[in-house]
Amino acid sequence: MAQAGVSNSLLAEALASIARGIDSVFDSLMPVPEDARSGLVSAMRYAAIGNGKRIRPLLLTATAGIYGVDRDSALRAGAAIEAIHVYSLIHDDLPCMDDDDLRHGKPTVHRAFDEATAVLAGDSLLAFAFEVLSDPATCTDPYARIELVRALGQASGSQGMAGGQMMDLAAETSEFDLQTVTRLQQLKTGALLGAAVEMGAILGHVAPEGRTHLHGYARDIGLAFQIADDLLDHEGDEALAGKALGKDAAAGKQTFVSLLGPDRARAQAQMLVDQAITHLSQHGEEADLLRAIARYIIERDH
Amino acid sequence: MAQAGVSNSLLAEALASIARGIDSVFDSLMPVPEDARSGLVSAMRYAAIGNGKRIRPLLLTATAGIYGVDRDSALRAGAAIEAIHVYSLIHDDLPCMDDDDLRHGKPTVHRAFDEATAVLAGDSLLAFAFEVLSDPATCTDPYARIELVRALGQASGSQGMAGGQMMDLAAETSEFDLQTVTRLQQLKTGALLGAAVEMGAILGHVAPEGRTHLHGYARDIGLAFQIADDLLDHEGDEALAGKALGKDAAAGKQTFVSLLGPDRARAQAQMLVDQAITHLSQHGEEADLLRAIARYIIERDH
Repeated sequence: MAQAGVSNSLLAEALASIARGIDSVFDSLMPVPEDARSGLVSAMRYAAIGNGKRIRPLLLTATAGIYGVDRDSALRAGAAIEAIHVYSLIHDDLPCMDDDDLRHGKPTVHRAFDEATAVLAGDSLLAFAFEVLSDPATCTDPYARIELVRALGQASGSQGMAGGQMMDLAAETSEFDLQTVTRLQQLKTGALLGAAVEMGAILGHVAPEGRTHLHGYARDIGLAFQIADDLLDHEGDEALAGKALGKDAAAGKQTFVSLLGPDRARAQAQMLVDQAITHLSQHGEEADLLRAIARYIIERDH
Repeated sequence: MAQAGVSNSLLAEALASIARGIDSVFDSLMPVPEDARSGLVSAMRYAAIGNGKRIRPLLLTATAGIYGVDRDSALRAGAAIEAIHVYSLIHDDLPCMDDDDLRHGKPTVHRAFDEATAVLAGDSLLAFAFEVLSDPATCTDPYARIELVRALGQASGSQGMAGGQMMDLAAETSEFDLQTVTRLQQLKTGALLGAAVEMGAILGHVAPEGRTHLHGYARDIGLAFQIADDLLDHEGDEALAGKALGKDAAAGKQTFVSLLGPDRARAQAQMLVDQAITHLSQHGEEADLLRAIARYIIERDH
């Protein structure tokens, strides 16, 4: 119990600190211009600042922290990956996609602004991510910067997150089996969570062959994260979530919960978290935050 | 006349060659996966392959050609910048933006597929551009690769093309003066044309202080290009253009033609092209293709 307490306070502090840090990077890198573009940048800020759990930047900075990476570097790279996540939410919420009115307990971007602005704000956040990563202020080593761009690019496009979103659209009209749902989620959610850990390792100058255990950790928490999301969608609290729930079932989509049932899904998620933590056995307390994140991923209530 | 003939055949050959080259890069880098993502990649290919004048890749390879850059490197970088251009057309054509049914004489992506696929195909092409640029196959020098990413990132986002698209949306309800329309077009069209020339110079390992004349060339042809577009929108042939024309006037938008009148607009474009060519005076015949492109930009009929 004492250890859980330590782990909880470590995590609570890290969550508060990453939220402040990412907001601060977004705030300084997205000044609102005094021309007709002001609505665009305002929409980017509305979506990006003050919202979300910042799981991806937290994973990135926690991994970077193991290797003693400068905090400002890690925060800038964290803002880049969070920008990709935020853009995907803006586009996912559009009327032609999930048609959602609420996100983080407030109107979605196309509701608060308009659809055209939402499309362009998402596009601009995508480009923003690569602008930030390619800036020498993120990391003085150009080789590390180009590796960051490559990791995030691969995780974002048709071979990563966007590909997973496409499969997710198809899931409404197809009967996907467990293997296909797993593949869908590895792309839709897992690719970006994996990139977060990978980018932390890149900033830490860990050689590719020294990252295998981190890939294992990322793969396991990625899947656990999605099972937890499915469980929350199935039985969570809309007020805490700040968005509509139960939509997958209503749309007739197969999820881990519909395929496994809630009890087996919960057991599977726990097993994945235990396994993720095992992958970190070569590290001492410098990896405690990554361990705490793994537990948090299935214990969160939103 | 003899010189114009040489210049025309040089350009005709270059246009045919760049079209083949870019199609070939897209074809090899966008294999259609055998899963539920096939519709996404098919939509990307539908928009990217076999269409368009490839002006941006042509500018990039023509600039790179001055400095003896390997053709395959330049073509890959050209495919990256063309992917950004193609994504912007897909999103621009969406019902919530310009709501266009035709592009390059065939149904727009959201018409041929659906809106959700069009949003994701655009997003994926944006990510694709940075995946290609960060791949060592594009250029073995990591420093040049990260410079390519930076140039294209800055030209694409809220400080570049997407910012210009936002101003363009505002143009429907605002009375923009010539200065504001110029700024709008420098962002919406000029930023990416400028990036094409910049990226050619980066691949050619031209030091930043040696690129000033190329920036001048790019700025001038960028503006000339937009004036020519406005003239074509005003008096062009819809069949040749493969898209609806006269939309700016119908939407009450200020353009170079509405602000200057067609005659002054045409004279201004010619002056800019002459000025662009003057910027190349330090180069011999190795820059003839850039000179021919400058002339072509205002002489094209679509």
